[in-house]
Amino acid sequence: MKNKNNVNSLYAVIIAGGSGTRFWPLSREHTPKQLLSIVGKETLIQSTVSRISPVIPAGNTYIVTNQKQMESINFQLHALTDESWDNRFILEPEAKNTAPAVGLAAIYLKNLNPEAIMIVLPSDHIIKDSDKFCRALLVAAQTASEGYMVTIGIKPDKPETGYGYIKCGRKIKDGVYNAIGFKEKPDKEMAAKYLKERDYYWNSGMFVWKAETILRAIKKYMPALYEGLVKIKKTLGSKKEGTAKRSVFSKLQPESIDYGVLEKAENVAIVPADMGWSDVGSWHALEYILPRNSNNNVKHGNIISIDSKNSIFYCGKRVVGVIGLDDMIVVDTADATLICPKNRAQDVRKIVDILKERGAEEYVTHKTVHRPWGSYTVLETGERFKIKKITVKPGAKLSHQLHHHRSEHWVVVAGTARVTNGDKSYDAHPNESTYIPMSTRHRLENVGRITLEIIEVQNGEYLEEDDIIRFEDIYNRKTEKQ
Amino acid sequence: MKNKNNVNSLYAVIIAGGSGTRFWPLSREHTPKQLLSIVGKETLIQSTVSRISPVIPAGNTYIVTNQKQMESINFQLHALTDESWDNRFILEPEAKNTAPAVGLAAIYLKNLNPEAIMIVLPSDHIIKDSDKFCRALLVAAQTASEGYMVTIGIKPDKPETGYGYIKCGRKIKDGVYNAIGFKEKPDKEMAAKYLKERDYYWNSGMFVWKAETILRAIKKYMPALYEGLVKIKKTLGSKKEGTAKRSVFSKLQPESIDYGVLEKAENVAIVPADMGWSDVGSWHALEYILPRNSNNNVKHGNIISIDSKNSIFYCGKRVVGVIGLDDMIVVDTADATLICPKNRAQDVRKIVDILKERGAEEYVTHKTVHRPWGSYTVLETGERFKIKKITVKPGAKLSHQLHHHRSEHWVVVAGTARVTNGDKSYDAHPNESTYIPMSTRHRLENVGRITLEIIEVQNGEYLEEDDIIRFEDIYNRKTEKQ
Repeated sequence: MKNKNNVNSLYAVIIAGGSGTRFWPLSREHTPKQLLSIVGKETLIQSTVSRISPVIPAGNTYIVTNQKQMESINFQLHALTDESWDNRFILEPEAKNTAPAVGLAAIYLKNLNPEAIMIVLPSDHIIKDSDKFCRALLVAAQTASEGYMVTIGIKPDKPETGYGYIKCGRKIKDGVYNAIGFKEKPDKEMAAKYLKERDYYWNSGMFVWKAETILRAIKKYMPALYEGLVKIKKTLGSKKEGTAKRSVFSKLQPESIDYGVLEKAENVAIVPADMGWSDVGSWHALEYILPRNSNNNVKHGNIISIDSKNSIFYCGKRVVGVIGLDDMIVVDTADATLICPKNRAQDVRKIVDILKERGAEEYVTHKTVHRPWGSYTVLETGERFKIKKITVKPGAKLSHQLHHHRSEHWVVVAGTARVTNGDKSYDAHPNESTYIPMSTRHRLENVGRITLEIIEVQNGEYLEEDDIIRFEDIYNRKTEKQ
Repeated sequence: MKNKNNVNSLYAVIIAGGSGTRFWPLSREHTPKQLLSIVGKETLIQSTVSRISPVIPAGNTYIVTNQKQMESINFQLHALTDESWDNRFILEPEAKNTAPAVGLAAIYLKNLNPEAIMIVLPSDHIIKDSDKFCRALLVAAQTASEGYMVTIGIKPDKPETGYGYIKCGRKIKDGVYNAIGFKEKPDKEMAAKYLKERDYYWNSGMFVWKAETILRAIKKYMPALYEGLVKIKKTLGSKKEGTAKRSVFSKLQPESIDYGVLEKAENVAIVPADMGWSDVGSWHALEYILPRNSNNNVKHGNIISIDSKNSIFYCGKRVVGVIGLDDMIVVDTADATLICPKNRAQDVRKIVDILKERGAEEYVTHKTVHRPWGSYTVLETGERFKIKKITVKPGAKLSHQLHHHRSEHWVVVAGTARVTNGDKSYDAHPNESTYIPMSTRHRLENVGRITLEIIEVQNGEYLEEDDIIRFEDIYNRKTEKQ
């Protein structure tokens, strides 16, 4: 595959701000859809980065997200590419839909490279045929370099009512057409008509254009946004940048780039592609992504199914027994289960809303939380105590830290722990325990070759994650002066 | 309520051998239905004993069960009545349906008291109106003393196809009729006919007769069983009793007392009653036992229901979110979930069969196991380690014991533990830990006023419950000589 453009002008902008309520109980506030692995081992955002690597030069991929998600995305991409992503985040102070996100990325990139061509990609889609995808991107990038705003259109294979549609007009060149109409999500009848007419394509939310082109279009069709972007541009790289962004974003109306610009502009092109794409918009989408068995069921995890058909069963370690289900979705995680008919998958947000209102932990986080050094699983919580299983990867270490409100008992159950405990340092082996008193600086490290597993029993009046003062951290997390 | 019989001749025989697969995942091999509390705090067998206490003299209630279930039943009844049940078990060497169980109880009781009147009761039914129940029993006992074999018939309030029916004949006296026909579980049409004809009653499986009467009937209608019972009778109380029972039972054909005797006998009476009875035969039965809300749902535990109706949701602490369900059953426990339409509730045994075949823990036991001294919950298991939370009631103590294959770290998180560790004895308080090396005699005791909670981290090559050698136990469990 050959990139005919000036390769160094090609940038990927991955939009990763979604809160992912539609994938509860697998997605949580702290692990939205893009951070989940649904197919295979890579998470959706990792797959997004992997997928474009043949066409985007290393170091030219940027992530638009918010402060809260940055750390987790950083860890995942660091783990994937084994290089630092610290300087490749474009942070939105608040979510205002895609137009402000795209505009912000455009001023960043134009500042870096006035010739920048942006490939705008959602972070949470699945594409089965990466080769076709990359080929479409290169055609789109070439077209973008000629001044077009290019959308990637997906050839429909069913009368889907969950996507927007784009109508193809006259051919611009091989594989590129004028886009002559953006259609909102249609009803069933209309979707069937679009499918039959064959010149409608799904709007994938993937766009390619020069930063300069999109900024010019924003100036014309969204002057208020443009005015804000100009203000931010003046502060780029200075101390005032954060304040400027916050001030501008707080006044913006949420707007999609499709509605705000593309539907109104003339120079919009479409590159149709048929590449096994899904936006994984709800649990329902899994049946187009994962294999189905002879009863037309998708089965994942410890599911026992008797006489069930046409259903999606996405489970983990727990046993789920189902009998006589048809057209249902069952999703099971360590601490929460979802059960609904396939045609109600969109309503999972109603359950998430109730959990959010209750301040329920099951809205915020999973029992197992992944960290750059490994993971922890909350096994039990009680009044004044919390039990965790902690795993530390070989060579990894937690920050040098202390807690003001809890002491910790550690029992090693696998591997060897290097323990820093106040002024002392020693190794603890399986079946050995150690005690970290309150307000004592300590550190846990795996200097061995196999995964370290310890059981931690916390005792104290306050046992939340924010009772931590870090003195040193190899993962660049915020520390206190020592 | 007055018992007109010779009160001391009245005995209750509670049949408690069921394996309770139909209530999975709440019932497990180690906790069949009779050991569960489904309504209120008492378990079904505790309620069965409580319910008859107004009519049966203390000490006249016997339990027919097997060796495996005896310990758990003993603990539950000890906890209920605060007296020892050690000598009130009639053990079946293997399950052969109700006729051998009833016959065995009859020879035991006739041996104790030649005038014994037996009230035979299943251990796992729910009866809302205890007063009516007791009144029916007294009428039945009076009738039994006159030589009848008496069945308690339940007035049907729906055309139930899950029960057997008994037809009423001529009136013997007030509230007592001749039973002139036993009908197997009918089809829908037949059940509707029975309901309409008004002289059919549900066969509750509750019977009252003199031990002598039923033995005479067994002699007549089940001569092989009678012959076996005579052999056992000769060994009662001797060392040979166990061997005799095993030998006789191994050759018996499984048979119900209904089919083996009652359908054939002449002197069968029925005492009809309307007392809010249910045999709790499957999860479906819950909607007749528990209250239903305005959407006609039964809801128990942490369930979030959107647009659901006519369903049974029986959950625990975990969040279960359901959307748009109709006529469904959802049962959720710590480690397993069941989902099926109401009309498939009987098929839960198919799931249990698969789990049994797999040797899955979810067939055998729950994560939390109740013991006379308190309970333990398995929080996590891994290679060479297991984590438990142990709670010990005030005043309770575990046996003096040792393990050959594991050491144990204990961290106290609530209450005060009195620890015997080899030759030493000391108290451990919250946030204190102690270590029990392998093969060291040890004991855990709660000498305080509040529940003791400890976290136990076991390390070793073999971590099963049977690696225990007991030296002393206040609950009379099997011990080694010290």
